[in-house]
Amino acid sequence: MPGKDAEFLAELYRSWNRRINANPEMDIDTQRDVFEEWHLPTREPTGVTYDEVTAGGVPAIRCLPVDADTGRVLLFLHGGGGVVGSAHTHRKLAAHIAKATGATALVLDYRLGPESPFPAQVEDAVAAYRGLLEQGYAPNRIATVGDSAGGAFAISTVVSLREQGVQLPAAIVSMSPYTDMELSGDAMVDNAETEALVDRPLMENMVLALLVGQTEVTDPLANLLYADLSGLPPIFITAGELEMLRDDGTRLAELAGEAGVDVTFEIGKEMQHVYQFLAGRAVEGDEAVERIGAWLGPRLGP
Amino acid sequence: MPGKDAEFLAELYRSWNRRINANPEMDIDTQRDVFEEWHLPTREPTGVTYDEVTAGGVPAIRCLPVDADTGRVLLFLHGGGGVVGSAHTHRKLAAHIAKATGATALVLDYRLGPESPFPAQVEDAVAAYRGLLEQGYAPNRIATVGDSAGGAFAISTVVSLREQGVQLPAAIVSMSPYTDMELSGDAMVDNAETEALVDRPLMENMVLALLVGQTEVTDPLANLLYADLSGLPPIFITAGELEMLRDDGTRLAELAGEAGVDVTFEIGKEMQHVYQFLAGRAVEGDEAVERIGAWLGPRLGP
Repeated sequence: MPGKDAEFLAELYRSWNRRINANPEMDIDTQRDVFEEWHLPTREPTGVTYDEVTAGGVPAIRCLPVDADTGRVLLFLHGGGGVVGSAHTHRKLAAHIAKATGATALVLDYRLGPESPFPAQVEDAVAAYRGLLEQGYAPNRIATVGDSAGGAFAISTVVSLREQGVQLPAAIVSMSPYTDMELSGDAMVDNAETEALVDRPLMENMVLALLVGQTEVTDPLANLLYADLSGLPPIFITAGELEMLRDDGTRLAELAGEAGVDVTFEIGKEMQHVYQFLAGRAVEGDEAVERIGAWLGPRLGP
Repeated sequence: MPGKDAEFLAELYRSWNRRINANPEMDIDTQRDVFEEWHLPTREPTGVTYDEVTAGGVPAIRCLPVDADTGRVLLFLHGGGGVVGSAHTHRKLAAHIAKATGATALVLDYRLGPESPFPAQVEDAVAAYRGLLEQGYAPNRIATVGDSAGGAFAISTVVSLREQGVQLPAAIVSMSPYTDMELSGDAMVDNAETEALVDRPLMENMVLALLVGQTEVTDPLANLLYADLSGLPPIFITAGELEMLRDDGTRLAELAGEAGVDVTFEIGKEMQHVYQFLAGRAVEGDEAVERIGAWLGPRLGP
């Protein structure tokens, strides 16, 4: 059983699920406010300073661990379906991962749907990456990192860069990726009882709000289960054992492996969606972040 | 005229006012989520690290400017009527003020009404202050600082400490204090057109949610216009020229002066409630924070 501290995340997710289901007409501002609570499970990491910058014209919060090598950058893409969430919800999580990796992190405030339909999110991430290269950062000292929809964007950004012939980053970290816009994973059914946040209507609304009818649910950039993943750098994918999106991760890992990518896959035992949010609060979160740092640190150029 | 950047705060306030008035039945969770946006006007201050601690059993975020004297502590009491707001909404503001002062800040997550009626908020602040003394911090190196309801708590905490015979802190900063639970200030009428956030129904609900019928609106600890302010340390009070709560500040400054307290009073020309939130975004916010630091720094023991 997860410890009591780890239950904080599941309880938070359940409270959102209850509130959203109690108010199916909830407006987008209120939905965003609810998801802004996403920072709550994560405790402030010590020894990290912050500033606000832009990269390729995209605003971001930069996390600077006091001892970090400032030439190493995690381009962090927050979750929230591309519709909710922000640099603020993920600042502490990104800073924990940056500390564990010995790097800085750039938490992008990419544009959100439905105001900015997909692929604006990936376009912003690509622009930020290109901006980093223009600022003189070395590709082999950059990784893309993300969770949930941001866990997919962390990969699709690199797919885009590959198609544009840009030098790729050193590695990708994809926590609880959400990419299957057809909602067809086995865990969508098998984990319906154990999942704390996601349900099918919520996900259907998220898909609508992101794609806005302008992109097919089988578009390979939106739905990486249809993408060509060959030529990508090493990927670390994680998924919570109890979450309905578990098999987005399982299948992505499988497909990436089949495409010849160096893939590491972790199932967080008895964990919910993006269990790394528990960093600083629960040992399950701290250890998950440590594993990311231990995997990612050596893959970034010195 | 305030610059365009300063308008961000007024626009944010107007958006809250619209949303709350459009939904008079808004539940407390949603109200709190709306007010959690309060951090948005303030940009991340550079060179500050954070951790989460407790003082006297009360949880808090500690702001540690990298060059600050860690023996100097601002006990920061956030605004929100004692009902909404949190250490998160005020972390960046407190950190800006700590930097400008050459001190650390402890942003308390005191208990909120209506779950914890007044004076739980002041009791928590008193407990935190006593906790600091027990940890070995010198009273003459501590100041209480707050905004809105927290601007009143910053004073009432010291009134409580005086009554308990505890050594008092060196100084008090009270930004846009809200303490007149009778809502009787001239500016409640005179500034009704220029105010962006506050209106009478909102304030009446805030009073109800904080006092829960257990404390009179003329109770001297809740309503400092009825308090004995003699013997308090130097106080810096600010109020926005355009805000409906302006005269809570005006009258508090007058009463403190009559009680023989060393009072400095600042009117923020063409400014809204707690205009210091604009720190890092607008020159009006940066200069307001600089003035606090210039006043407070020399009043804290070396």
